Amino acid sequence: MREKMTKIAVLGNGSWGSVLGSMLADNGNDVILYGNIDSVNEEINATHTNSHYMKDWKLNPNTKATGDLEEALDGAEIVLFVLPTKAVRIVAKNVRKVLDKTGNKPLLVTATKGIEPGTKKLISEILTEEIYPNDTDKIVAISGPSHAENVAQKDLTAIACASTNEENAKFVQEKFSNDYVRFYTNDDLIGVEVGGAVKNVIAIAAGILVGKKYGDDAKAALMTRGLAEIARLGVNYFGAKPMTFSGLSGIGDLIVTCTSSNSRNWRAGKQIGEGKSLDYVLNNMGQVVEGATTVKAVHELAEEKNIDMPISEAIYHVLYENADVDEEIKKMMGRSPKSEIRL
Amino acid sequence: MREKMTKIAVLGNGSWGSVLGSMLADNGNDVILYGNIDSVNEEINATHTNSHYMKDWKLNPNTKATGDLEEALDGAEIVLFVLPTKAVRIVAKNVRKVLDKTGNKPLLVTATKGIEPGTKKLISEILTEEIYPNDTDKIVAISGPSHAENVAQKDLTAIACASTNEENAKFVQEKFSNDYVRFYTNDDLIGVEVGGAVKNVIAIAAGILVGKKYGDDAKAALMTRGLAEIARLGVNYFGAKPMTFSGLSGIGDLIVTCTSSNSRNWRAGKQIGEGKSLDYVLNNMGQVVEGATTVKAVHELAEEKNIDMPISEAIYHVLYENADVDEEIKKMMGRSPKSEIRL
Repeated sequence: MREKMTKIAVLGNGSWGSVLGSMLADNGNDVILYGNIDSVNEEINATHTNSHYMKDWKLNPNTKATGDLEEALDGAEIVLFVLPTKAVRIVAKNVRKVLDKTGNKPLLVTATKGIEPGTKKLISEILTEEIYPNDTDKIVAISGPSHAENVAQKDLTAIACASTNEENAKFVQEKFSNDYVRFYTNDDLIGVEVGGAVKNVIAIAAGILVGKKYGDDAKAALMTRGLAEIARLGVNYFGAKPMTFSGLSGIGDLIVTCTSSNSRNWRAGKQIGEGKSLDYVLNNMGQVVEGATTVKAVHELAEEKNIDMPISEAIYHVLYENADVDEEIKKMMGRSPKSEIRL
Repeated sequence: MREKMTKIAVLGNGSWGSVLGSMLADNGNDVILYGNIDSVNEEINATHTNSHYMKDWKLNPNTKATGDLEEALDGAEIVLFVLPTKAVRIVAKNVRKVLDKTGNKPLLVTATKGIEPGTKKLISEILTEEIYPNDTDKIVAISGPSHAENVAQKDLTAIACASTNEENAKFVQEKFSNDYVRFYTNDDLIGVEVGGAVKNVIAIAAGILVGKKYGDDAKAALMTRGLAEIARLGVNYFGAKPMTFSGLSGIGDLIVTCTSSNSRNWRAGKQIGEGKSLDYVLNNMGQVVEGATTVKAVHELAEEKNIDMPISEAIYHVLYENADVDEEIKKMMGRSPKSEIRL
């Protein structure tokens, strides 16, 4: 007997939304992408391509696209958010309106990684507030080392799916896993989100080191000590579990972001290390360098809550206070002796 | 007032021993290298070079070398072991004889990474047994992402120094740290040793993936899931602390070993991934591929203690049971769904 198809609405039809949508269609789900650029929707429906975001690639032909949120959400069991952080709250408000009308109660999955400027809230917190007040159980976050380009080529990929509700995490695991992407459940929703959001700051630092011609030891040390400070922020401010940061959404994502030239944050850092100004880099990147925004929120949190985050602070000083990279490195190396594991 | 110099005996004058010795001389210690190849000792004393192990590099000219263990140990406050795993026990027995004669009780520091074949003991366990029975406090292990070539060029490096005795770890931290290498104390001696020993198995796997043309996602997933199984072995068999594996001796060392072409294990794996036979690779490497030995011990421990280590098992099957790499990957991706954090 053929299993009933699960309808999944994917909100956001950029590179990662398209690739995830296509993957979910590969898995036999009924997938519809929602996006607000009509020409992209039309191209996906007509030729199964998304040439603006993903060159030389075809979506699974069963993937549909629409600019109509009601059509996208109609009968959906899962709504997957793959939007820029700054768009999440406004789209969530619109989703709430549609769901209030239809009475449908889909599971919400977020693939968006970020901290909302100002409120310093994670995506799951925004979705809970706007769509399911007091019911975090209906939210699942997916995060891990996964570039759209790699998953599109069916490179082997492992991703964490986290929820406060184990059954919901398992449902996503079952629907999303296949023979090239493997999902691992995790019960630390908040921790899984923090890693993905803050790693971009460390990626800028990794780029700077490469731009300054430091070697492999320095890069590995930076990633490890970067992970330690992400974990300190996650545990002390957000209430995350320490072990989460040694997983896919923590060190896994950090590794791929700090070592792959696909990462914009890394590329921005490299140019800064080579002596370019932040303004020049941001104006010539052609895409958002999220770490440059995230580091402001991290800097505020670290100061406010007195959390020791020397690498993030150094990046903040370099980007926004004209600090000299070499001086910042010297200061970091000359700090008082420390023990390794301090949360 | 000038501080009294600390005499440090470095046992082993290969690349890492020479670089560590030179670094310790940079720090103002009185350093003597001990090794059993006379020509190397003579070269170090005459020209401050060690051309067999480190091309185009000069040691700090205050670093002396000797083939006489009694001379090396005379008045030493610290004895640093930088020997191959298989040489540690025999040299330790000789050290014990000398110390019994002189009554000197130096701190023992190990930079050797390995598990003794047969006994499956870590280096600190061998040193305790042979030199200071029932006094593990006198042992400090140093481990972290540190290639001799990088430290020789004064690349920024961070290393963990671990002991069951905090004062001893701090003493090593103080004597070893400078403006290009930063040591972090850690109280989990065993955990710090396990990461360095087992990472070479995962490095072979990382090389295989590159040889098979898999991408960045796959490599990051492998390192993260590899770390998870190293931690499972460390916690369940050796009694290590889980958080240690997210530190310098765990993920830090794993990153540098899996991403740097300086790693022999990684290079061996790459050739196997490209279709070469294990015999061919081992015969043509010209150096020991430790991971190929370590995986045997790991395989035995995993079976004996029923510890879930799918990557290490796959590498064992590929190296010693003629298993097909693609089949092993397919099996790994098709395993039953798992939660992420399981110790």
